[in-house]
Amino acid sequence: MVANEFKEEFRMAEQYDVVVIGGGPAGNAMASGLKAQGKTVLIVEADLWGGTCPNRGCDPKKILLSAVEARQAAQHLQGQGLIGAPKIDWPALMAHKRGYTDGINDGTLNGLKGQDIATLHGQAHFQSDNQLAVGDRVVSATDYVIATGQRPAILPITGHEYFKTSTDFLDLDQMPKRVTFVGGGYVGFELATIANATGADVHVIHHNDRPLKAFDADLVKDLMAAMTADGITFDLNTDVQAITKTATGLQLTADNFELTTDLVISSAGRIPNADQLGLANVGVTFDRHGIQVNDHLQTANPHIYAIGDVSDTPVPKLTPVAGFEARYLVGELTHPGAAMKYPVVPTQVFAAPKLAQVGISAAAATEHPDEYRVNTLDMTKWFTYYRFGAQQAQAKVVVAKASGQVVGATLLSDVADEMINYFTLLIEKHVTLPDLQRLVLAYPTPASDLQYLY
Amino acid sequence: MVANEFKEEFRMAEQYDVVVIGGGPAGNAMASGLKAQGKTVLIVEADLWGGTCPNRGCDPKKILLSAVEARQAAQHLQGQGLIGAPKIDWPALMAHKRGYTDGINDGTLNGLKGQDIATLHGQAHFQSDNQLAVGDRVVSATDYVIATGQRPAILPITGHEYFKTSTDFLDLDQMPKRVTFVGGGYVGFELATIANATGADVHVIHHNDRPLKAFDADLVKDLMAAMTADGITFDLNTDVQAITKTATGLQLTADNFELTTDLVISSAGRIPNADQLGLANVGVTFDRHGIQVNDHLQTANPHIYAIGDVSDTPVPKLTPVAGFEARYLVGELTHPGAAMKYPVVPTQVFAAPKLAQVGISAAAATEHPDEYRVNTLDMTKWFTYYRFGAQQAQAKVVVAKASGQVVGATLLSDVADEMINYFTLLIEKHVTLPDLQRLVLAYPTPASDLQYLY
Repeated sequence: MVANEFKEEFRMAEQYDVVVIGGGPAGNAMASGLKAQGKTVLIVEADLWGGTCPNRGCDPKKILLSAVEARQAAQHLQGQGLIGAPKIDWPALMAHKRGYTDGINDGTLNGLKGQDIATLHGQAHFQSDNQLAVGDRVVSATDYVIATGQRPAILPITGHEYFKTSTDFLDLDQMPKRVTFVGGGYVGFELATIANATGADVHVIHHNDRPLKAFDADLVKDLMAAMTADGITFDLNTDVQAITKTATGLQLTADNFELTTDLVISSAGRIPNADQLGLANVGVTFDRHGIQVNDHLQTANPHIYAIGDVSDTPVPKLTPVAGFEARYLVGELTHPGAAMKYPVVPTQVFAAPKLAQVGISAAAATEHPDEYRVNTLDMTKWFTYYRFGAQQAQAKVVVAKASGQVVGATLLSDVADEMINYFTLLIEKHVTLPDLQRLVLAYPTPASDLQYLY
Repeated sequence: MVANEFKEEFRMAEQYDVVVIGGGPAGNAMASGLKAQGKTVLIVEADLWGGTCPNRGCDPKKILLSAVEARQAAQHLQGQGLIGAPKIDWPALMAHKRGYTDGINDGTLNGLKGQDIATLHGQAHFQSDNQLAVGDRVVSATDYVIATGQRPAILPITGHEYFKTSTDFLDLDQMPKRVTFVGGGYVGFELATIANATGADVHVIHHNDRPLKAFDADLVKDLMAAMTADGITFDLNTDVQAITKTATGLQLTADNFELTTDLVISSAGRIPNADQLGLANVGVTFDRHGIQVNDHLQTANPHIYAIGDVSDTPVPKLTPVAGFEARYLVGELTHPGAAMKYPVVPTQVFAAPKLAQVGISAAAATEHPDEYRVNTLDMTKWFTYYRFGAQQAQAKVVVAKASGQVVGATLLSDVADEMINYFTLLIEKHVTLPDLQRLVLAYPTPASDLQYLY
């Protein structure tokens, strides 16, 4: 009994070098990195170990997209060498997805345990600098790292209780006949592409005329035209005001707009998981963009850091950025040094075709004609795209005039996600056209086109 | 009359700075580059303008492969999200191919004319240093560049007149029911993959047990196993001795071997187009490996150079190598300088899956365990491959121990051609793992796996 009481008491005062809050890509990389550096680490997760990306984000989305891509590859060559296209079997595709996602929680947890990292499941809540409650436990650390990510925002309209989210969509047992996305960000575009390929009647509703506002306006228009041709309806300048359940489905209403559908996904952005952490008790500030951090990823409390999607940084909130920030902060917490400096960050919309962007945009470059030239290229008839019957392939590439280096690219094509990584490498490695031509790349491949894009 | 006679006489003595023999990728790049440097240039082609690659090589092959890839992508996801796979409609696929290849000859010729490059159609034949006959014309130049490429080798066996070649295969109006490749090089593997996907009964016959001998033995075995599972029969250690026409087809015979088929492709290598050029008249030497050149791509005759597939160089004979050599030689003929130095050259077999290799091989690295480590990785269950139901994905990556730089890779997967280009960039740019981790690459993509391959 005494031993047990002592143990309980010891538990009450559990002390670590670092407590990481959030067991997603950012938190796990953080915990592993710190542990490898000899720190004592506890990692806390309130929901699924592994976090959004592998459980209900990038990974499952791209598994579902595999079937869409294969189907579309066949469709593109109809009459040009192929007869027939596969149909999507949603329950089987969902089983394929679950074959991956079902193992994530336990696999992640076991991976952490295998590294002798302490784990705790529950909602973390700061009571003071030295007290973090997790359920009925209280732990303490020299430093804390918040990596709790984001969750889908639900528009606060009448009938908001009928909204489902990307999380629901990515785990649907059956695909309804009519699916509507409210919000034209990348989540809406990507999931609409998947739903449409199953044969569903798909609408994407957006409050103004500029969905995907972080991407090149011309190429977004081209993407919408392609998706429209594939059967998706975009309802722009439409501010949904209410969702009502009727005998025939869910009715969405806006000014001069009415639509009945079976499933409504709120795809109007994501909000930081910062509101349940008791941050006010430790002087950490946040708003809808995330937890405020300085260029050392340090919050207003010098012993509390925030990384990944939950932090308010000047870069897109993406899994590889989370990993990058974790590697930086592991360094900072072991051998403090320079301020965070981000590389260029590629962003992409895994729709059909794919839209991807990195570095300086064509729009920004056009404002500085002395510094930059912009190559605007219709690549549709280039060999790379002709061969698989692509409907279109577009590029805007920004080159710095003085150095001859590529500094930005926006691409719309079926291989834009592949090409954008080459551009990321070319930009970060300061590769000029003569440099590139000193390489021999496999031909014919998308990469062997790079020399024609400078 | 006098004017015409003069013109004829002038023609007889046509003099150029450079005459380029061969209007394929090497010759065209050469002619364009020299013209841009202010040289007077004549380019001579005996067959199709554009040469092998776009007319009857890499490009048409990969157009045909598009249908195979799309079909296989659908097959991989059967039971995992897709129902049904497209069938190949060979005549339509051939029309799709011809939609590209039919325009190559005229397009190339017009492109040269548009650059004010003189062109001449016919077989070139050296009479002396100062006289190159092309049909009834004789031209002369300060320097000559031979870029006549290669042609398929025909095995000199009994019944060799029944052999067809890759050129015939790539322009077949109908795909026969039974297709046999004699010779297990990359041409045999690639075209067998295409024929097999159409439903043909396909054999690949090889004289020993080591087809694709330039590639990693283990991964070649894995590739053959995959192709065998797809229905292709490999007849190894089989030295075909005769082809006989019988009532039921073409009968191939070897020791203890007999096979009746409808189409026999000689895929036992390629030979240089050097035998009809009168090279003995100008002291230029060649053998079955090509025209001998020094490290300035200069033949035994100091005013005659050879580039591209026809030259005997220490690197694989590939289109991008031809372009690389042309760029080098344009420099040499305008501003003579350093000896040729090749970068690493990626090679690949566009089969299903694809096999690709660059830099130092695992076999070579294993002989120097102090210098190198070899990462042998089964990636089949990695997310990248799981998601599209890949049957297998293998890698052998060679890392230099001292520098931490990747120096070689062999990959077997459906995206090996994409991955090998990243490795080519990583090797040539001397990228270490910490360097790579200072980049943010789009996730999830094949490139975002690179960090796990070091």
